[in-house]
Amino acid sequence: MFELDRSIEFQNKRNDILTVGELLVDMITAEYDDNMNCNEYHRFFGGSPANIAMNVRMLGIKSLVASAVGKDGFGKFLIDHLQKSKINTSNIQQVDHASTSLVVVSKSKSSPIPIFYRDADYQLLYTQKLEEAVKNSKIIHFSSWPVSMVPARYTIEKTIKLAKESNTLICFDPNYHPMLWQQGEDGKEYVKSILSYVDIIKPSEDDAERLFGKDTPENQMNKFLKLGAKLMIITLGENGAIISNGKESIKLHTLATEVVDVTGAGDSFWSGFYTAIIKGYSIRNDLSFDMAVSAYKLKYMGAVINLPKHEKIKEIYKL
Amino acid sequence: MFELDRSIEFQNKRNDILTVGELLVDMITAEYDDNMNCNEYHRFFGGSPANIAMNVRMLGIKSLVASAVGKDGFGKFLIDHLQKSKINTSNIQQVDHASTSLVVVSKSKSSPIPIFYRDADYQLLYTQKLEEAVKNSKIIHFSSWPVSMVPARYTIEKTIKLAKESNTLICFDPNYHPMLWQQGEDGKEYVKSILSYVDIIKPSEDDAERLFGKDTPENQMNKFLKLGAKLMIITLGENGAIISNGKESIKLHTLATEVVDVTGAGDSFWSGFYTAIIKGYSIRNDLSFDMAVSAYKLKYMGAVINLPKHEKIKEIYKL
Repeated sequence: MFELDRSIEFQNKRNDILTVGELLVDMITAEYDDNMNCNEYHRFFGGSPANIAMNVRMLGIKSLVASAVGKDGFGKFLIDHLQKSKINTSNIQQVDHASTSLVVVSKSKSSPIPIFYRDADYQLLYTQKLEEAVKNSKIIHFSSWPVSMVPARYTIEKTIKLAKESNTLICFDPNYHPMLWQQGEDGKEYVKSILSYVDIIKPSEDDAERLFGKDTPENQMNKFLKLGAKLMIITLGENGAIISNGKESIKLHTLATEVVDVTGAGDSFWSGFYTAIIKGYSIRNDLSFDMAVSAYKLKYMGAVINLPKHEKIKEIYKL
Repeated sequence: MFELDRSIEFQNKRNDILTVGELLVDMITAEYDDNMNCNEYHRFFGGSPANIAMNVRMLGIKSLVASAVGKDGFGKFLIDHLQKSKINTSNIQQVDHASTSLVVVSKSKSSPIPIFYRDADYQLLYTQKLEEAVKNSKIIHFSSWPVSMVPARYTIEKTIKLAKESNTLICFDPNYHPMLWQQGEDGKEYVKSILSYVDIIKPSEDDAERLFGKDTPENQMNKFLKLGAKLMIITLGENGAIISNGKESIKLHTLATEVVDVTGAGDSFWSGFYTAIIKGYSIRNDLSFDMAVSAYKLKYMGAVINLPKHEKIKEIYKL
């Protein structure tokens, strides 16, 4: 049971958070455009786990990424970018005969419809290096991407098992999207089935709707909690977020004053959350900080922006 | 046997050429860049068969395209583009749960290394509409793309069979590339195995090298001819092209004076070739025209450029 007024205790380990899963190129329209009419695209570093690893490093905690890319120009671009950001890339696997995964998306103030081009990302294998990284990290994080296709799904299943044995906190982003799954596979059921094996989940309202259909945020939370979620946060866009441990819940308002680009807003929330729990905040105090990090991110274009250290964020948002 | 001093005779059919296969988005770096370091990309209409269909229409003959795209923003872009160019799109199949195929490529004066993102293109099915189009066309054209993966491979095999029965000239671009084939499959053997079933092939020097290893153009031609090629043209970049019917050969020099972008140069050569054989030129006279069309294309950026009518090309290049 996670108590909302207590901080989460971690064992003394070398690394704070290991994010596992998709490392990819985001190709975003140069102009605001909901229908992909634009002919000019800008390439960005992307993939939620990698974004989180970059963000938390800027906020002030230690991170590692485990991902798979192709042996091509885009894979090189992603690895170079991580290295320039001083992220250890020894767990980035370079896969033969596979293209670095790519997502094409419209720059949009609402939820844009992406086109997915997946190849190398789901070829992630369970290696000895990955095993060591899981053991030596306080938290592991993954999204629905790696569990949606094999062999990455098997890698995550083994990773969850090892994390339990190693007292590593298991956090899962249930960002189910039908386009991630192969036609004929029941991705919703799979995502629901792993909720009881993980410690913390953070769906957005859209994620919840894709899994359970339209409903109130409170009802959606109950569905996740019934399926075994231990601590959950549902993010509600401009309506803030709610956290619940199944016993009590807290509602938080957004701190966003200016929305330039929503890409990566969820990742920045996660990043604030991880930084605060590692820094020893109670879960209740943690939340305001998460809202501040995502509010800061919304002011800028791109999935990963230059975030200040966590002390600076606290100062800006008077926390 | 194709006689070099004679024109090719066609039955009186409704359509001149049906191109079958990949319809896709080319995402090209904004700057000259051999290593994909560029962050700005421009979207172009692409895919060799579609490019040829667009080109020959501009040059002055009738064309149809059979391809498969996803139900997404890129699929819509490609279909809209064809319709704006007054190309009949009734043979463009829109596939559920597949992304419109995409190729990312560096703008380059040499042969750029592409990153392939294939999904919808190889889902092309053999339909009654396609059957009618094959019967009613004088020529069918396809490249190595659709034969590299199933179910499109089966569609092409059925198409070849029907084309033989319908007196439709079968032209094949043996542009073999290992990245098109699934790992473990022998794409080279497959490409070699279909040479005796088709009428005309046009490999580039690079295509020949990928299939047979490095050798002189004359030796490469002999290898294709031994495998059953009836009429073949090998294009040699700045060194022109050679045509052979297995009995005699003609060497042509390039007419290019200015090289801005090589993307689509092979397609413009094919387009010139098809236009000239439909217009009743002898194969020998045809070749100068092909060289002129590709020389014109090389002066401009993009896989498909605004080509003048064939009479205008003849005038510009004093043919």
